[in-house]
Amino acid sequence: METELSKRLGIEHAIFGFTPFPAVAAAISRAGGMGVLGAVRYTAPDELARSLEWMEAHTDGRPYGLDVVMPAKKVEGVTEADVEAMIPEGHRHYVRDVLAKYGVPELEPGDPTGWRITGWMEQVARSQLDVAFEFPIGLLANALGSPPADVVQRAHELGVPVAALAGSARHARHHQEAGIDIVVAQGYEAGGHTGEIGGMVLVPEVVRAVDPLPVLAAGGIGTGEQVAAGLALGAQGVWLGSVWLTTTEAELPSSALVRKLLAAGSGDTVRSRALTGKPARQLRTEWTDAWEAPDGPGTLPMPLQGLLVADAITRIQKYEVEPLLGTPVGQIVGQMREVRSVQAVFDDLTRGFERALTRMNRIAGRT
Amino acid sequence: METELSKRLGIEHAIFGFTPFPAVAAAISRAGGMGVLGAVRYTAPDELARSLEWMEAHTDGRPYGLDVVMPAKKVEGVTEADVEAMIPEGHRHYVRDVLAKYGVPELEPGDPTGWRITGWMEQVARSQLDVAFEFPIGLLANALGSPPADVVQRAHELGVPVAALAGSARHARHHQEAGIDIVVAQGYEAGGHTGEIGGMVLVPEVVRAVDPLPVLAAGGIGTGEQVAAGLALGAQGVWLGSVWLTTTEAELPSSALVRKLLAAGSGDTVRSRALTGKPARQLRTEWTDAWEAPDGPGTLPMPLQGLLVADAITRIQKYEVEPLLGTPVGQIVGQMREVRSVQAVFDDLTRGFERALTRMNRIAGRT
Repeated sequence: METELSKRLGIEHAIFGFTPFPAVAAAISRAGGMGVLGAVRYTAPDELARSLEWMEAHTDGRPYGLDVVMPAKKVEGVTEADVEAMIPEGHRHYVRDVLAKYGVPELEPGDPTGWRITGWMEQVARSQLDVAFEFPIGLLANALGSPPADVVQRAHELGVPVAALAGSARHARHHQEAGIDIVVAQGYEAGGHTGEIGGMVLVPEVVRAVDPLPVLAAGGIGTGEQVAAGLALGAQGVWLGSVWLTTTEAELPSSALVRKLLAAGSGDTVRSRALTGKPARQLRTEWTDAWEAPDGPGTLPMPLQGLLVADAITRIQKYEVEPLLGTPVGQIVGQMREVRSVQAVFDDLTRGFERALTRMNRIAGRT
Repeated sequence: METELSKRLGIEHAIFGFTPFPAVAAAISRAGGMGVLGAVRYTAPDELARSLEWMEAHTDGRPYGLDVVMPAKKVEGVTEADVEAMIPEGHRHYVRDVLAKYGVPELEPGDPTGWRITGWMEQVARSQLDVAFEFPIGLLANALGSPPADVVQRAHELGVPVAALAGSARHARHHQEAGIDIVVAQGYEAGGHTGEIGGMVLVPEVVRAVDPLPVLAAGGIGTGEQVAAGLALGAQGVWLGSVWLTTTEAELPSSALVRKLLAAGSGDTVRSRALTGKPARQLRTEWTDAWEAPDGPGTLPMPLQGLLVADAITRIQKYEVEPLLGTPVGQIVGQMREVRSVQAVFDDLTRGFERALTRMNRIAGRT
């Protein structure tokens, strides 16, 4: 599976795998794709440095990438404490009430607050980038809007191509104007932050909008036939996130969560603001329902909502409170039915693509 | 573009075109696809008979199909008047208020009420079928649930294969149990009644759920690359509706509506209950907004909502009240940029499919 883009990036297959787990990212790169490590959950730069050192040691010299969440809008000199202070007391009460209703215990002193997702605050993302640019990363991706101009320039000076996610053609054109090299067209089906346009419509629309920039198809891709569909739509590669969550190498915080993922159907996700304040597709749970409830306070804008719920999510995960336990995941979750190695998933993708193509050639009378 | 299904049905290309307009359906069949005429807007059986006679005379002996909307649930002996009587007065007031706000004139005596969509009431659909089975139709499609067992049996006795639309794998399995021959997997992107699962995920899920029944991919398909994507996902053909609305042969009730369709982007549709009482994707208008308004009465269940708004829709169309003027259409509307003949659209589909396949073969190193 070779496209102009995969050749340029030095990877064997035009398959890009986004994951928060270094072991998964490294395995994707070793399999011949581009493993892209999500940095959003690293708060301490030295933790990220250790993970990247580990990646270096476990990718056999193959390219890997890093994904940061850096809003284009700059908020000068705002600290996490300033943002915390903006959270209304009523919302904090609501979180406490929901957790109490389900009997979720408190954290113990010294418990890590792993879900304290502050990586999208610009100063955190910048300190991550200072670390990342010390490593020979093969791709820098940004999950929210275009990164600031100086970051794009710095990446380009180091020869690192920059990718950015887009949920609409307009959004994609902004990326192009900002000097982005690769647009990830993320359809409605996708896990995490998504728009409302289905991949079938979005991908070709974005391809046309930013031509000749290369586009990756994202959302609803977990099998080789879906890889084929993404490429049929004009993409130069595919971007997969959800499908890696149930791999052997993934380190989900809870085995109950893995069981929930394996049991979920394609209709068991919801686009909700419960996790970050922006619509992100995730498992539908009694937690997401609580934020839709007519008698609830509703969600806060990003980044307030993420800070508001950070400890709650950590507690829900630590104590495996099943009705509340969720994760960002796409509609493809309905096809995730067993725990497999990254290599097994990857082989399925490339072989399934070949099978789909053979069938299409037969349909076209090209035997 | 030949699949087992297209061979069985005697069509050259596995492209199925749903349309309420006989001239469009006939042109699709003449081009080598399967034109499927929507019967839902015919209230008088003899009108439908005249249209089918016209189809016979204009399809050069090629197969064409008929699409009815027949709910599987039987409501014995309920007349249109009975249903009308169930509509709350408050809802009638709200319709009057919205129309008054936009200064929409009344209908004149003798005006046809073309939007009085009663075809989905079972007795109406049955009288349509009595007419249809007098003609050598090549396909009977049902847009809402599985048709009743006796209808499926009657079609099979006459050698007419039966297709039914499904928005989920569960829904598709019900069709299979009901003896349906072909499942149309209709993704979230599609115009008209749709579920929440994007086509990229839904199509392969349905293919696996009803194997070995043939599946058609529907939703978000308007170009040859989207045809290729649908086939890549395992479908034995594609089902397109929206793309024909802006063809030369279409007879939309208003040129202002054609202009709105040509100007709309992929983000300008909404899944709304405003038209029928069930979620149907359509242009977002101030009419659909009025049914979402927090101070409005909300929509009624099917078939009440359809009867409630029938005259209003006719008036909005007759007087071309632009802010309220809409139609069922999928997200593909963003790619409908000019009025073209059915043949030109069809040629684009088949040629675009070939181009996409050539590109995919290059990606796979099969040159």
